[in-house]
Amino acid sequence: MPTPEELDRIHIVLVRARNPNNIGAAARAMHDFGLRHLRVVNDYPVPFEDARSAVDASEVLAGAVACASLAEAIADCTLVVGTTAVGERDLQHPLLPLAEAAPRILAELGRSTGPNSNPGVALLFGSEKTGLSNDELSHCNFLLTIPMQQVAGARHLSLNLGQAVAVCLYELVRGPVAAAVPPGESDPAAEAHAVAADSPVAAEPASAADIERLTTLLYETLEKSGYQRRHPASSDTVQLRRLLRRMSLDASDAAVWMGIFRQLLFKLRRFS
Amino acid sequence: MPTPEELDRIHIVLVRARNPNNIGAAARAMHDFGLRHLRVVNDYPVPFEDARSAVDASEVLAGAVACASLAEAIADCTLVVGTTAVGERDLQHPLLPLAEAAPRILAELGRSTGPNSNPGVALLFGSEKTGLSNDELSHCNFLLTIPMQQVAGARHLSLNLGQAVAVCLYELVRGPVAAAVPPGESDPAAEAHAVAADSPVAAEPASAADIERLTTLLYETLEKSGYQRRHPASSDTVQLRRLLRRMSLDASDAAVWMGIFRQLLFKLRRFS
Repeated sequence: MPTPEELDRIHIVLVRARNPNNIGAAARAMHDFGLRHLRVVNDYPVPFEDARSAVDASEVLAGAVACASLAEAIADCTLVVGTTAVGERDLQHPLLPLAEAAPRILAELGRSTGPNSNPGVALLFGSEKTGLSNDELSHCNFLLTIPMQQVAGARHLSLNLGQAVAVCLYELVRGPVAAAVPPGESDPAAEAHAVAADSPVAAEPASAADIERLTTLLYETLEKSGYQRRHPASSDTVQLRRLLRRMSLDASDAAVWMGIFRQLLFKLRRFS
Repeated sequence: MPTPEELDRIHIVLVRARNPNNIGAAARAMHDFGLRHLRVVNDYPVPFEDARSAVDASEVLAGAVACASLAEAIADCTLVVGTTAVGERDLQHPLLPLAEAAPRILAELGRSTGPNSNPGVALLFGSEKTGLSNDELSHCNFLLTIPMQQVAGARHLSLNLGQAVAVCLYELVRGPVAAAVPPGESDPAAEAHAVAADSPVAAEPASAADIERLTTLLYETLEKSGYQRRHPASSDTVQLRRLLRRMSLDASDAAVWMGIFRQLLFKLRRFS
């Protein structure tokens, strides 16, 4: 995960963005993921005023720089990365899926340089309609693409600008995930329960003694209710203990269930 | 990376979304990442017409289902995941960063079941202004959050709805890149549950509809028993739903508990 100083070296460059709402959404995503430097390349005055209403984006937009050319916008950057939808044009550049591009960008951000020279990284997004032109792509060290599902016969896919910026920044800050188990790499039963279980956080599990008390109490309650006469096969102590064990109770929930069955048994006894 | 069939089991559920543009942007992200099933929960007619202009989203929007309640929208799902901005409220649920939540969702999608029974996963997004309410959160197995940079003093962060949907779907399809789990290690949470669970075979988890029926039945039973007068703080519908969710019930155990509480309620009614 990049440090705030490293994130501060990323410049988001919007090239020929036409819709102020999209500029606002890009700025909002930047704000949320801790970026500040927005550069906008357009050959006409950029309608920042219209974009400034975007929630939370005001600081980023206030600092946005309008540039007359792409070359100007990336002049101080040591790595320039273009974003593109696959199949958009005849690409003459290395093209990496976002997840493989991110480590290269992070490596550049983390590279140590002289005291007066921090490496800057430019991440380029093209216009909503046409993406980046071949001329614009030629400024890039490499290209990245967000992998999407190409359905046969469908026209080419692309997220809107605000979504594309959000997804790219998310990938940069998400960090490697050490704790997750990729599907298929562990016991399927354990997976199924981990998924179904409403408790990835460690809670104090119920002790065997808790389960045993609860089993006895449930048995008595069911006896009083007439359940056992109707379901003899599924209501002996062994069956009930297994049923309770499968609940993976933690200690505090076991106490709640004790209270519930105590009350039910109390009420049933009063009446019979 | 999930197969198209697995992606087809994901239901994106927008709860009280107010802005047709956001519904359109969510639908566009779904289209781009290969999802089809959109459900919208609102207590007024959903302005699909306004959203239909969203680029590329027409097929998803044409198939969108308007639901009167969240319970209806998730009834056929075996895993319900809520999305939330950290710090939004007093969370009583396990909260996972998106990158850790995704493998759990993928495991559920990949779980093989009978020919007529495919596990459905619901991914819930709340209203733009307030997120998911505590009542809505109580339907969830767990929550996920998109990690963002909290700057000291800044108000809480959240992407707009279309961006949040895009980022979540991106994480689900991106696939493991240099998967971070060293051989021999696995998720401690999964391990804990495997130990606690008395069930070496993967069982069909209870659906949200099963949990909802059981919640209602438990509520009525406790009402009849006088439990609620003694424990008002821990016996409202939201608390009971959470308690039952934490049990990680499979479908057949849910049926056993239904039978148990039906009998208890029957007996309590006869006497009172």
